Amino acid sequence: MLPDQKLLRIPGPTPIPPSVSRAMSQPMIGHRSQEASDLIETIRPGLGPLFGTSEDVLVITGSGTSGLETAVVNAAHPGDEVLVIVTGAFGDRFAKICDAYELQTHRMDVEWGKAADPEQVEQYLKDHPDIRVVFATFCETSTGVLNPIGEIGKAVKSSSDALFVVDGVSAIGGVRAKMDEWGVDIFVTGSQKALMLPAGLALIAVSQQAWKVIESNPQKRFYFDLKKYKDKIEGNSTPFTPALSLLFGLKQVLELFEQEGLDEVFNRHQLMMKMNREALTALNLPLLTDDRDASPTVTAVRPNGFNAEDFRKVIREEFALSLAGGQQNLKGKIFRVGHMGYSSPADVLQTISLMEVGLRKIGVHVEFGTGVAAAQEVYTNWGEK
Amino acid sequence: MLPDQKLLRIPGPTPIPPSVSRAMSQPMIGHRSQEASDLIETIRPGLGPLFGTSEDVLVITGSGTSGLETAVVNAAHPGDEVLVIVTGAFGDRFAKICDAYELQTHRMDVEWGKAADPEQVEQYLKDHPDIRVVFATFCETSTGVLNPIGEIGKAVKSSSDALFVVDGVSAIGGVRAKMDEWGVDIFVTGSQKALMLPAGLALIAVSQQAWKVIESNPQKRFYFDLKKYKDKIEGNSTPFTPALSLLFGLKQVLELFEQEGLDEVFNRHQLMMKMNREALTALNLPLLTDDRDASPTVTAVRPNGFNAEDFRKVIREEFALSLAGGQQNLKGKIFRVGHMGYSSPADVLQTISLMEVGLRKIGVHVEFGTGVAAAQEVYTNWGEK
Repeated sequence: MLPDQKLLRIPGPTPIPPSVSRAMSQPMIGHRSQEASDLIETIRPGLGPLFGTSEDVLVITGSGTSGLETAVVNAAHPGDEVLVIVTGAFGDRFAKICDAYELQTHRMDVEWGKAADPEQVEQYLKDHPDIRVVFATFCETSTGVLNPIGEIGKAVKSSSDALFVVDGVSAIGGVRAKMDEWGVDIFVTGSQKALMLPAGLALIAVSQQAWKVIESNPQKRFYFDLKKYKDKIEGNSTPFTPALSLLFGLKQVLELFEQEGLDEVFNRHQLMMKMNREALTALNLPLLTDDRDASPTVTAVRPNGFNAEDFRKVIREEFALSLAGGQQNLKGKIFRVGHMGYSSPADVLQTISLMEVGLRKIGVHVEFGTGVAAAQEVYTNWGEK
Repeated sequence: MLPDQKLLRIPGPTPIPPSVSRAMSQPMIGHRSQEASDLIETIRPGLGPLFGTSEDVLVITGSGTSGLETAVVNAAHPGDEVLVIVTGAFGDRFAKICDAYELQTHRMDVEWGKAADPEQVEQYLKDHPDIRVVFATFCETSTGVLNPIGEIGKAVKSSSDALFVVDGVSAIGGVRAKMDEWGVDIFVTGSQKALMLPAGLALIAVSQQAWKVIESNPQKRFYFDLKKYKDKIEGNSTPFTPALSLLFGLKQVLELFEQEGLDEVFNRHQLMMKMNREALTALNLPLLTDDRDASPTVTAVRPNGFNAEDFRKVIREEFALSLAGGQQNLKGKIFRVGHMGYSSPADVLQTISLMEVGLRKIGVHVEFGTGVAAAQEVYTNWGEK
């Protein structure tokens, strides 16, 4: 590889587009200046469509987890009964945050690699009518599952008046979301995934129903108090010093979305998912998830006949290509390929072709070109669908 | 002015050095990669000297306020009696966070523009022996006061066994701090001030005495739980996705400190303070603070005979030079000149000379060169001290 070439194909952080990198290098400005207000005003209208909402999207300086905690401490009143649908490591994180706040936390554990079942959620809520908040994960990054948030939202809303809170961290910006239509009350994402930015921003969209719960919530909080952010966004400002370099970058990200068109952005992610799945299947690599449950942003493989960590190591050392390993239960058992954000069908072909070489290097019999050919077929036929 | 030239002379955010800007533009890496660990390992030893501590410094992704809240929820157990020394808007913020957590908050309000009196703190703690935590501000950004943290620390430690928590946000990196010697238990700063970075990192140093209180603290928290950060830093990692672009930048900032030498960095800030104070005095502009209480990083002026906001507006529109206004009580009554971080004596001379022109433009009689000459005198005689 070239000394300065690195191929980052993990499910976040993702590569930064050059124009975004340039935008973030702009000279610093005062955070209470007219220029900063203008920046926030320019960004605001572009965020709602990413979540599928007509509501304002609030921006907190912090990791994705700060956004998840913000959702918990605003949506759940102290001592509330809540349901956390756990389909992997990030559902588990929601549950851990709820535990840290000593909520009465019900866990619905789903086998890792499978999506949650909306009917089961509906029944659970009928059986537990005191549940005030339901937490779910859109794309479960640890398994590559895309949960059916639309159907789960319908199940939540038809069987309870609980708030529905969704972690959209590795989906928003890569997968069509319909917050308002789906009945999502709080939708959270982070900047370092399909939004093509470095980590450091948590974005949170809030429904009118959620605001009622938030406004009367006595839960102790300060930095994560969404009311403070709501009060300020109306004047194109923030309650605390914003991460301005990331906002410079976010403006350019929205410009890139505008240029490509959001429909095409989401279509590209669907295409990359399909290319990956067909290629990996052609290479006899077992996919962790069924097609029905698959995320457009990340694909997990559970290899048999070779060690996932050995494979990742060879790929990294020989080609500077980073793939992700498994987390928690799946540590050492799977590897994950990220295909979101600044990632194209051409990048998928490159990744697959290097994976083929890497497989041969660790002694797995592979007919060169097999996976690539399968991905090429998907790519060339895609327009005809 | 040149179309692309902006002079940012507010007390944060501050200008980003070009090499730091370039460092932040590096391609993204995996946050759990060896490269990320190496980055954190390289940064770690450079942070303690900025605070004057041999302890590890923990890094949280968030605004400065997230660091202040982290200090509160880790140092104070629920219901604790605490004392907040309020010398301006940022002391007030500490008190507001304590109020949000329903601590039994004692406020010691000091006239804005004056420093806190260590003897008064000592007496207060003797009179209120149940106080568990004392909160103070090193540089009160809203007034340009540098509080005598060393003496206050001595007062706290000699009269109580309370923890001593200090907001170092606009001081650390520009003013010599001696955390261990002064008896500071938790010392917080943000990235966008004397550390020459965009906002988005809160840095927190913690004493051994504080760890005992933190480890037994039942206060509900998750993202701000310092134990999580401590557990991870030992393996050169973080509990949540770090703001990697800012860490790339922080590594380069430490490199710049190394090149200049920390003693010289602090000396430069002393020199810039003195140049500003002499120049502003020569221009008959009344300084808000006494010499004894003055901060090396920001200087506040309370003009008589003209309107501070009119002056700031002219300066901004004519020269693209940003000065800060007053906050809360002092809104409209003062203006503030930032001189920290990527700021040199040459920049002070430029700022003073443009301020002279701006004063003439709003109708204030000024003999051109008067302030500049005073600053030049300080500059040329400085070496002889």
